Amino acid sequence: MWKNVEHIGIAVKDIDASNDLFKTLFNTPPYKEEVVNSERVTTSFFQLGEAKIELLAGDSDSTITKFINKKGEGMHHIAFEVEDIYAEMDRLKKEGFQVLNDQPKKGADNKLVCFVHPKTANGVLVELCQEIKK
Amino acid sequence: MWKNVEHIGIAVKDIDASNDLFKTLFNTPPYKEEVVNSERVTTSFFQLGEAKIELLAGDSDSTITKFINKKGEGMHHIAFEVEDIYAEMDRLKKEGFQVLNDQPKKGADNKLVCFVHPKTANGVLVELCQEIKK
Repeated sequence: MWKNVEHIGIAVKDIDASNDLFKTLFNTPPYKEEVVNSERVTTSFFQLGEAKIELLAGDSDSTITKFINKKGEGMHHIAFEVEDIYAEMDRLKKEGFQVLNDQPKKGADNKLVCFVHPKTANGVLVELCQEIKK
Repeated sequence: MWKNVEHIGIAVKDIDASNDLFKTLFNTPPYKEEVVNSERVTTSFFQLGEAKIELLAGDSDSTITKFINKKGEGMHHIAFEVEDIYAEMDRLKKEGFQVLNDQPKKGADNKLVCFVHPKTANGVLVELCQEIKK
């Protein structure tokens, strides 16, 4: 089951400048920053109701920087919290969606994550995520 | 005050085909369709937690079709529910954000809406919205 929009990822060039910009826009500061070494990105998070806005800035070899070089800064992906990421990945593969990782992987914010290729999802990079129980 | 992500708008070419696609993706059908004549678009809505996914398909003169011709199908805007749209528009203008309409206008789904130009918001088309009290 798909439960809710967990976060919306926004690709930015300069995390500090964009933290200031979105802090002014939302009139509230980011509640945390996190470096995800495996993805070569620095992230920051703003909470708006049950969803988060995640800013992502990457080093020159990151997919985020490649995305910005091609399309400019802006909306990058939508992440949905699901109840059972393994079951949903199986279902989506059978329905013909292309998943970018064959098994869930560890993402930011203590989550198991999987991405669906935008070419099979109307141009939207869709992330499924499920909190890792401690 | 900014309360929550109200919806995420996705630009699509063919509303029927995309309704089918997202119905399969989310494993749940859209709960309504609405034609917004002033914007020359047909919209459909999926509920995921407190946020909605809004698909938008437009006629050939709509801003949605122009967006797709330039950038392809995909994420188009993020809408945030605010407590007082007039107060937030005033605040944002003073902070240097460019709003696309000087006064709130009537949008889909019984809302007053206002858009912030993406060039002042890190490439993100931001919508502020507030439900019209009946």
